[in-house]
Amino acid sequence: MALIVQKYGGTSVGSTERIREVAGRVVRTAEAGNSVVVVVSAMGRTTDDLLAMAQELTPLPNAREMDLLLTAGERIAMSLLAIAINAAGHRAASYTGSQAGIITDTEHGKAKIVDVRPGRIQQAVDEGSIVIVAGFGGVSTAYDVTTLGRGGSDTTAVALAAALGADACEIYTDVDGVFSADPRIVPAARKLPQVTYEEMLEMAASGAKVLQLRSVEYARRHGVPLMVRSSFNDTEGTWVKDEEEGMEQALISGVAHDDSEAKVTIVDVPDKPGVAARIFRDIADDGVNVDMIVQNVSHDGQTDMSFTAPKADLPRLGEVMARVIADSGSARYEIDDNIAKVSLVGAGMKSHPGVAADMFEALADEGINIEMISTSSIRISCVIRAADTARAVQAIHAKFKLNGGS
Amino acid sequence: MALIVQKYGGTSVGSTERIREVAGRVVRTAEAGNSVVVVVSAMGRTTDDLLAMAQELTPLPNAREMDLLLTAGERIAMSLLAIAINAAGHRAASYTGSQAGIITDTEHGKAKIVDVRPGRIQQAVDEGSIVIVAGFGGVSTAYDVTTLGRGGSDTTAVALAAALGADACEIYTDVDGVFSADPRIVPAARKLPQVTYEEMLEMAASGAKVLQLRSVEYARRHGVPLMVRSSFNDTEGTWVKDEEEGMEQALISGVAHDDSEAKVTIVDVPDKPGVAARIFRDIADDGVNVDMIVQNVSHDGQTDMSFTAPKADLPRLGEVMARVIADSGSARYEIDDNIAKVSLVGAGMKSHPGVAADMFEALADEGINIEMISTSSIRISCVIRAADTARAVQAIHAKFKLNGGS
Repeated sequence: MALIVQKYGGTSVGSTERIREVAGRVVRTAEAGNSVVVVVSAMGRTTDDLLAMAQELTPLPNAREMDLLLTAGERIAMSLLAIAINAAGHRAASYTGSQAGIITDTEHGKAKIVDVRPGRIQQAVDEGSIVIVAGFGGVSTAYDVTTLGRGGSDTTAVALAAALGADACEIYTDVDGVFSADPRIVPAARKLPQVTYEEMLEMAASGAKVLQLRSVEYARRHGVPLMVRSSFNDTEGTWVKDEEEGMEQALISGVAHDDSEAKVTIVDVPDKPGVAARIFRDIADDGVNVDMIVQNVSHDGQTDMSFTAPKADLPRLGEVMARVIADSGSARYEIDDNIAKVSLVGAGMKSHPGVAADMFEALADEGINIEMISTSSIRISCVIRAADTARAVQAIHAKFKLNGGS
Repeated sequence: MALIVQKYGGTSVGSTERIREVAGRVVRTAEAGNSVVVVVSAMGRTTDDLLAMAQELTPLPNAREMDLLLTAGERIAMSLLAIAINAAGHRAASYTGSQAGIITDTEHGKAKIVDVRPGRIQQAVDEGSIVIVAGFGGVSTAYDVTTLGRGGSDTTAVALAAALGADACEIYTDVDGVFSADPRIVPAARKLPQVTYEEMLEMAASGAKVLQLRSVEYARRHGVPLMVRSSFNDTEGTWVKDEEEGMEQALISGVAHDDSEAKVTIVDVPDKPGVAARIFRDIADDGVNVDMIVQNVSHDGQTDMSFTAPKADLPRLGEVMARVIADSGSARYEIDDNIAKVSLVGAGMKSHPGVAADMFEALADEGINIEMISTSSIRISCVIRAADTARAVQAIHAKFKLNGGS
């Protein structure tokens, strides 16, 4: 008898009709002889509606209270799902993150899990009940309700799967799995049967939205096998797990792109020790998430430094950049929000030195200019003009013959 | 420094605009030098919307899950109110019924409070925080979320006021207080400055909807002074408290009416010991709330027996009545749902034997037939035709000179 943790996102439980369908899927999993623990997100736009009400009251709502407010969304979804499963004749009971033993630090709005004590739900599972748990929320060491931040429900699911020693954690969403590229840009993109944790991490960091970075990290650390699949059909999804011995590693898994970032260039930065540290300390202190950083070689004791950061952080960036320029003795800064990042990810590229050259060639053949480059052992990312994104993804996808059936 | 518990109903927090106004009122109470604990209901139609979603899934949703579902409504209201108060520059924190120490039995949907352990909110109050508590919900001795049933938020407020030793419990609603009659029927009806717990209990049982019976009972048992008042203006409301020594007791407080009940008559009931007990045991076992019971004198060993019960219970009544007729050897039963009950309530009538006669005279002068009569030491109720309700209430109100300024 296997123990399966299933997580359903907001679209999957977007209406009572959808909740009934999810209930059916959960019941089928149980009837196939599995113990099932289900983690749910809030229904459809519930979280946005709750956020909007808070914003009507104040632009800066109290963080502790926001966590109490937003967790109402998952509470509604979990109890409705339990009602639907009970109505279908199976025993099911729902539990809040707190009741399920998700213990976090006190960082409201982006709490970190410090412990998982699943005793209560383990007992319910042992007694033959289907267990439903509210994703996203937990209880702090100060006994307050907390939330795990963006993608929190995925993290709840993975954390419970790890603590319960589940055989698999299935992440149900509105796409069929992880693809070799965004199918809206590359219609022939192939669904990947399997990727490693590392590849998934690089893809998530490179703009693939199917799984949140944090939950993949958690899964990798605890060795929880994930499957990403659709709640709208019965197609097998994509396994995310450790590299398997003896399995030939695909050279390249896929092409990811991200147009949610802007490029910031600091001009004429004095080229001396400690300047970069000071600049990025200032920026980090302001809570801006810096992604790629590139520094060119210096001329006459001065250099240019560029980085990318989420466009969402731009309003905050203006203030801190003025300070950065003054502190560092730089000339000025420029912001360019017409960029995109295209990334090639593949665990197999470690041992293939020609991959970067092939990727640059694919872009060059399309006449696409590369503005920044950053690499890891299993990823190469290039910043290009935003308008070139689709052509870039298609060219790279074709260059590496990632199409289905190839 | 006084400790005031304020309770705001669903209409009072029906929108973010209303929540902002309630926040203003709470802050003014605190700035006047009081400690404030606020109990809130769910916003406007939230509870109905949640119920409707559950009904879309199944006509008989699981009771434990319904309690988790419905308490989401109060959770949203409490956190939004705390957000609004924090935004107004005052420290406020919200707590679920469970966090506030409302311990109940395990009767989901209509749990009874078995203990109140307000240590956590007492501490918050002592530290100078305004405390917001979700009404209606608690936590059972089995650690599950429970709800207190209809009027549960009033009960939460009174229970916390009792446990905290509050100086007063203010129940904010959409009317100005308790009136000598329904102002929609008697425009000259007078707002009562004060009624006793007993009068309030009789009025609530007689159809006055301003306070739930149960919360008044709780307040009386623990001696919590209640004030019923409007959240839409600053008018003083009505105090509900113990009779005060040396205060001249008004003869009559008011006229209440109730058209939510139907009359059931059981015809030709064998007049022998144990029959009535069997009949009303059968009915009670089916969960039907019987109100007035009248049995006429018997002729030829048979009698007729009538009782009133909520129209809402009629669907369930048909089945049980068939059983009752068979069990008791009666001839048949008749249901009349065109009735209303008018009641005269006043602590002073104990010592004035002529009150009943005056009331019957008022009805007779209007040509209104009395079908059933029931009395307590401070109340007289008559069942009449539903169509006569307004005229009956007006005639009695005039007979006892209850108009404002009289």
